[in-house]
Amino acid sequence: MLYPNNIKKTYTKITNYSNRGMDLEYLIEQANEYYIDNDIAYIYKKPTPIGVTKVTYSSKGKRIQDGFYKTPSTLDFNGLYQGHYIEFDAKVTQNKTAFPISNVHEHQIKHIRNINNHGGIVFLVIKMNEKYFLLMGDTFLAFIDKEKRKSIPYEYLLENAYEIKLSLKGLDYLSTLNKIIGG
Amino acid sequence: MLYPNNIKKTYTKITNYSNRGMDLEYLIEQANEYYIDNDIAYIYKKPTPIGVTKVTYSSKGKRIQDGFYKTPSTLDFNGLYQGHYIEFDAKVTQNKTAFPISNVHEHQIKHIRNINNHGGIVFLVIKMNEKYFLLMGDTFLAFIDKEKRKSIPYEYLLENAYEIKLSLKGLDYLSTLNKIIGG
Repeated sequence: MLYPNNIKKTYTKITNYSNRGMDLEYLIEQANEYYIDNDIAYIYKKPTPIGVTKVTYSSKGKRIQDGFYKTPSTLDFNGLYQGHYIEFDAKVTQNKTAFPISNVHEHQIKHIRNINNHGGIVFLVIKMNEKYFLLMGDTFLAFIDKEKRKSIPYEYLLENAYEIKLSLKGLDYLSTLNKIIGG
Repeated sequence: MLYPNNIKKTYTKITNYSNRGMDLEYLIEQANEYYIDNDIAYIYKKPTPIGVTKVTYSSKGKRIQDGFYKTPSTLDFNGLYQGHYIEFDAKVTQNKTAFPISNVHEHQIKHIRNINNHGGIVFLVIKMNEKYFLLMGDTFLAFIDKEKRKSIPYEYLLENAYEIKLSLKGLDYLSTLNKIIGG
């Protein structure tokens, strides 16, 4: 028996969705949308900075004809939640035993330190072993300042980071953050 | 007598700089750089969001071959200062008697209201009559909620906004903000 068209479509959609490489970012964007729609928080993904080398002008306006993606020096997401400055980045690793610190650029580490020092709430959202973790900036910095190793063992995440549960709202990281900061 | 090459170059540079349309943004970026270099604040201009319709891949990486600028729904600058979430936009008007409210998009007005309600510090930096003003979000909202007119009279700015003085640091808007929030 053939499935009715609409059921098959839904099934295809779910398959694609769970396989896409961007899924962590997608789940965060979904949560951000939920937060904005429900007046909970105003957190956005920063557009990737573009270097533009050629533009054209037409009746439709300015168009970019040649450009390239630059490396951002801050983290990908920032915004406002209950009077707090929030900034974080989403990182995925396929590594099963440890999170390679090289996933976080040197200038991003410096930035995490600055935001932490100035009273902002800064963290990493890490996808590893099909789980999602919220690793606070100060915990991350304490690790790299103390340890010589180039990666954070999975056990360290299990003990020192906070698991974020998937929900219908996407990746509801603010519920997890509430448990940490007592919001 | 001809000027030595280096003097002439400097002179040309100053002329260009004072005439450029982007100068307000440039002066703010200069201040932001000063704040970052001196560990005072971490405030950045958000890249303009780009819609990309064509990319190519080569040994040099991914390049954008067709794209367009989108209208951002937030304000241009945001960041962290002394534990405060800061967000603002830079607006220039050639109008000498009033600042047209149409300079601020409808979705930006909504965003200003949201940031204000959630405990962020939100404002406009307005260049008008060769002066620079910091107009706090709540003052701006109070005006548009009360008044029916489509522009803010210059006198209103003189009385209710705060003048930002130019300095060697660029447009040092945080010194002005300190006077308002008592930082």
